[in-house]
Amino acid sequence: MSDFKPGLEDVVIGYSSVCFLDGIEGRLLYRGYDIAYLAEKTSFEDVVYLLLNGVLPSAEESETFRAEMAAQRTLPKSIIDLIRLIPIDTHPMDALRTAISFLGTTEEPVLNTSPDRIQRVIRGISASATIVAALNRVRQGLEIVEPRQDLSHAGNFLYMMTGKEPSSEHTKLMDVALILHADHESNASTFAARVTASTLSDYYSAIVTGIGTLKGPLHGGANEAVMHSLLEIQTIDNVIPYVDEKLEKKEKIMGFGHRVYKTYDPRGLILKKLSAQIGDQLGERKWFDMSVKMEEYVRDRKGLYCNVDFYSASVYYLMGLPIEMFTPIFFVSRVAGYTAHILEQWENNRIFRPRLEYNGPIHSTEITSK
Amino acid sequence: MSDFKPGLEDVVIGYSSVCFLDGIEGRLLYRGYDIAYLAEKTSFEDVVYLLLNGVLPSAEESETFRAEMAAQRTLPKSIIDLIRLIPIDTHPMDALRTAISFLGTTEEPVLNTSPDRIQRVIRGISASATIVAALNRVRQGLEIVEPRQDLSHAGNFLYMMTGKEPSSEHTKLMDVALILHADHESNASTFAARVTASTLSDYYSAIVTGIGTLKGPLHGGANEAVMHSLLEIQTIDNVIPYVDEKLEKKEKIMGFGHRVYKTYDPRGLILKKLSAQIGDQLGERKWFDMSVKMEEYVRDRKGLYCNVDFYSASVYYLMGLPIEMFTPIFFVSRVAGYTAHILEQWENNRIFRPRLEYNGPIHSTEITSK
Ligand SMILES: CC(C)(COP(=O)(O)OP(=O)(O)OC[C@H]1O[C@@H](n2cnc3c(N)ncnc32)[C@H](O)[C@@H]1OP(=O)(O)O)[C@@H](O)C(=O)NCCC(=O)NCCS
Ligand SMILES: CC(C)(COP(=O)(O)OP(=O)(O)OC[C@H]1O[C@@H](n2cnc3c(N)ncnc32)[C@H](O)[C@@H]1OP(=O)(O)O)[C@@H](O)C(=O)NCCC(=O)NCCS
Repeated sequence: MSDFKPGLEDVVIGYSSVCFLDGIEGRLLYRGYDIAYLAEKTSFEDVVYLLLNGVLPSAEESETFRAEMAAQRTLPKSIIDLIRLIPIDTHPMDALRTAISFLGTTEEPVLNTSPDRIQRVIRGISASATIVAALNRVRQGLEIVEPRQDLSHAGNFLYMMTGKEPSSEHTKLMDVALILHADHESNASTFAARVTASTLSDYYSAIVTGIGTLKGPLHGGANEAVMHSLLEIQTIDNVIPYVDEKLEKKEKIMGFGHRVYKTYDPRGLILKKLSAQIGDQLGERKWFDMSVKMEEYVRDRKGLYCNVDFYSASVYYLMGLPIEMFTPIFFVSRVAGYTAHILEQWENNRIFRPRLEYNGPIHSTEITSK
Repeated sequence: MSDFKPGLEDVVIGYSSVCFLDGIEGRLLYRGYDIAYLAEKTSFEDVVYLLLNGVLPSAEESETFRAEMAAQRTLPKSIIDLIRLIPIDTHPMDALRTAISFLGTTEEPVLNTSPDRIQRVIRGISASATIVAALNRVRQGLEIVEPRQDLSHAGNFLYMMTGKEPSSEHTKLMDVALILHADHESNASTFAARVTASTLSDYYSAIVTGIGTLKGPLHGGANEAVMHSLLEIQTIDNVIPYVDEKLEKKEKIMGFGHRVYKTYDPRGLILKKLSAQIGDQLGERKWFDMSVKMEEYVRDRKGLYCNVDFYSASVYYLMGLPIEMFTPIFFVSRVAGYTAHILEQWENNRIFRPRLEYNGPIHSTEITSK
């Protein structure tokens, strides 16, 4: 029997200059910059620029890039027709997977050999926000809101989601949330996207792989699950009985645990502050207080820290965003990371083709290949 | 610097009883049965049954299962509407990725927790053939052909592709081709599908990952590329100059090489016979003769054996199937393997979450998480 690492735990699959993750210290850097710095000092557009180009933009480059992203927001009419074909009660991640796959059919393929690929992928990142917002509107039976050019990526996204120009506080919250989710090294969906890219398939194929993989409740799907847990718990007094019951039944507590972090997730630390902030602002501390109690109890009882999906849940909820859109919102950000990893994979590619060890029977038959 | 295996070469990711692959001996077994035996003695439907259930069906089970698969062939009208929205010049693999993703939105999700999942996945396998055929017809500006219940999976697929009831010879050829492509252990697309399934995402998400990954020219896309090479070469005298030029330019020769096989691919051996057979039958030996010359020359000069995509190209071409449909046809078969691996992944799941080793700069900033 082979000695293998279930789930490829700690197995290194290659080098990368996109993301540095220290699970012991609890540090996360994009292209060498601490996310705490990026969250405070830059915008999501700057972070996209950084992920794609490896350096932060100058003030002028930042302006130009923001305009470039804004110029790529509009969807072809056929995507709206497609969205309307999808049954209304479909999970938005399934609808999103289909719509982004469709977007790929409306464009010239972006391949490892496309000389303009770093330019071309901006379209995918930018239009992802428009698609998620359109799905949200259609699901709610509301008019689709056309993108505006004058707002930031975060601001325009909220505008398209709600139909109302967001406050500067909400825009900033969304901007920070997008920055914090933009990349996370070889998490399952980014890794899957790299495997797709490694056959030299096209950009949208790899992004679609990312969406389908992010969807799972062990991964991006957890933020939606966290909010359902909080709603189920309802009051602070129910937190401990809820956790106890889950653990007794050997069920997982959503938003806790991580393969790499053995300490506080640095993104969680920032999101925790944001959750308190929006709670105070709206005079609705309940979800934050429950979350803190839950976090502390799970850590004390099980030694498990909360992850990025834990506090993002209450932040999005208090912003009035529909729970089923939480994972699609994660994607609006993570698509930037997928893109950087796909481009990097292509720079130094080898097809991912591991082995499975056979543990079944062998039947002898009258006819064989040998 | 870490010691890692580029492309996860030889890295074992888990146990499996789906497929046994011996790259030194050149043997391939599905659930313990040699593919040479399965190709001669069973049907594609039997192989699907075998992959899903672990045992070959009895004569009676075989009949029932065939009927079950046949009963799942019809598409909802909305998929046809979707197919018509896709630009006509889209590569069929992109269209297929979109259509199968859409199919997932028309069904109740199939999850690791669905008690009837082994029944439910039959729909995905069966409808894949109908979708590929519909895409083919629409691309050609022809009427979509409704599935028939009285034909085998292979026979009905050819019927839906061409609009004509196929000869028994062609049906047998397609049946064998489908059997030979049905699974191949942890190839890139099956592996990617397992990564998607490992987040406990749904069945169609994992299948869609498979399609996007299969598409690449280093993987399933090679069969299409092989036929383009043969057409470019045109005459047997051009084979050697063509290969020499490719090797000189350090370009890959499509349909050659394999991560695991260090000898003849046992599927290639069977497909080689089929290619000769259909060439003789149609009095058109040219493609076969060119292929043999190419195979021998590449082996002698580079020590590379041809793989499954090499002889399948001339087989499909002589059957009159459009070159751009070769990789989608590969999928019509491989979807069975994906399905077996997804179900197996769920039986003993751990999320795939490896590491990337950082090789970029670290910038010090005034604000940090620590
Ligand atoms: C994130 C996650 C998938 C990491 O998976 P992993 O590295 O394979 O971790 P394991 O499942 O091996 O966990 C190790 C141990 O901690 C326990 N554990 C991990 N996360 C847990 C959770 N959220 N609740 C309860 N127990 C948990 C496991 O049951 C296991 O216990 P055991 O050793 O007694 O069997 C896992 O922690 C999880 O499922 N968390 C909940 C979902 C979630 O929040 N995902 C979002 C991640 S950003
Ligand atoms: C199948 C394939 C992707 C396997 O990839 P891999 O295991 O990473 O193999 P490598 O690329 O490391 O190949 C090893 C050596 O053989 C060479 N080689 C492999 N396949 C080759 C081919 N088809 N033509 C020319 N040279 C080839 C490589 O260039 C490399 O040479 P080097 O050591 O001098 O650099 C690869 O053989 C290939 O690209 N084949 C062509 C595409 C194809 O037919 N794919 C279908 C597979 S079913």
